[in-house]
Amino acid sequence: MFNSINQHILRCSDLTPEDLGVFDDLLVYKEVPKKTILLHEAEICNFEAYIVKGCIRTYYIDDKGMEVTLQFAIEDWWVSDISSFHDHKPSNMFIETLEDCQLLMLNPQTKELALTRVPKLERVFRLMVQRNLSVLQQRLFKTIATSGEDKYLDFIKRYPSIPQRVAQHYIASYLGISPEFLSKIRTRLSKK
Amino acid sequence: MFNSINQHILRCSDLTPEDLGVFDDLLVYKEVPKKTILLHEAEICNFEAYIVKGCIRTYYIDDKGMEVTLQFAIEDWWVSDISSFHDHKPSNMFIETLEDCQLLMLNPQTKELALTRVPKLERVFRLMVQRNLSVLQQRLFKTIATSGEDKYLDFIKRYPSIPQRVAQHYIASYLGISPEFLSKIRTRLSKK
Repeated sequence: MFNSINQHILRCSDLTPEDLGVFDDLLVYKEVPKKTILLHEAEICNFEAYIVKGCIRTYYIDDKGMEVTLQFAIEDWWVSDISSFHDHKPSNMFIETLEDCQLLMLNPQTKELALTRVPKLERVFRLMVQRNLSVLQQRLFKTIATSGEDKYLDFIKRYPSIPQRVAQHYIASYLGISPEFLSKIRTRLSKK
Repeated sequence: MFNSINQHILRCSDLTPEDLGVFDDLLVYKEVPKKTILLHEAEICNFEAYIVKGCIRTYYIDDKGMEVTLQFAIEDWWVSDISSFHDHKPSNMFIETLEDCQLLMLNPQTKELALTRVPKLERVFRLMVQRNLSVLQQRLFKTIATSGEDKYLDFIKRYPSIPQRVAQHYIASYLGISPEFLSKIRTRLSKK
C-alpha cells in the first residue's frame, strides 16, 4: 500500500527507512467509491490525498452555474485545495472522485507532525507544490492563449491516459469549450 | 538591505541569526532600472529574485502577438519562472521591471547551497511556492469565471497599490480585457 508513495518520496529526498516508517504511520488509507465528493465548495479542505489508485477531478461552479474543471489527478499525484488546507479558509472548489479510488490521506495536524518528526519532508512537499504550480501555470497559459484544438492536442500530450478514463464532457469543461465543439475537434483530428 | 527578507523568512521559520547570516551571504544584491527585461521567452530562468523595492510583471505573448500579463509582484514577493528555474527548461514568459528595482537574487546553485546549509529554508520556500500557487489558482478562477468588472474589483481588493503604480494597459492585459473596456469600467465605478 505504501510502495508507490515511498518511491515518490525517495525520488525527491533521501529519507531513511525509519523516516519513511514514521511518515507512513501518519497516513490514513481510505477507499472511496467513484462519484464521491471529497470536498464541497464553502467547506474547509482538511486533507491532502495521495492517489494510490484512481482518478479525481477538481472543479468549481462559475457564475452562470456551469462546472469548470480545474484539474485531473491520477496515480502518483496529490490532490487538495492547498490554500484552503493551509489557511483554514473556505474553499471555492469541489473535489470529486471519477473512479473508485485508493487514497493515503493527511490532515493539517498529521502533516505538521510529519514535518516536525521528519524535516526532510519539507523538501518533498516543496517539490510537490512546485510541480502543481508549474502545471497550473501551463494551464493558465493555455486557457488564455490557445485555440480549442491546440488546447486539446496539448491536453492529450500531457495526459495521454485521461481521455480513456473520463467522460468527454469533463474534458470539455477543462478545456473551456462545449462538448459538441470537443466532439467536432476529435472528429477533425481523426481524419488528419 | 537584508532587513525585509529576514523578516519575511522569520515569519515562516525559526532560523537563528547564524542561519540568516549564511543565507544572506548567498544572496546577490542588484539594482535594476525600470523597463529592464530580466527574462526573455525561450531563455532558461536562472534566478529567483526577492523584491526589496520596486514592481515587476511577468507576461507572455499569445498566438495573436498580444502581451498577456500573468502576475504583478511588488515588495516582499519573490519572482521567477519556477518551472524553468527548477527543470532547466526554456521559459515561455517574459519578466520585466516596471519600476526601478532593488533585488536579492539566488541562482540554482546558490539556492541549493542555501538549502543544504540551512535545511530549515525548505519550509520557507515551500510556503513561498504555496502562496504563489494559491494566487495563481485564484487568478485562474477569475480568468475563467467572472465578468470584467468583477475581475477589476477583485484585482483592486487584492492589490490596492498596483493601480497607482502601473500603466492601465498592463492591468487590462492582466484582466484579459481591452484598455478601452477597463477605462469604461473605471468610469462606471467612479459614478457609483
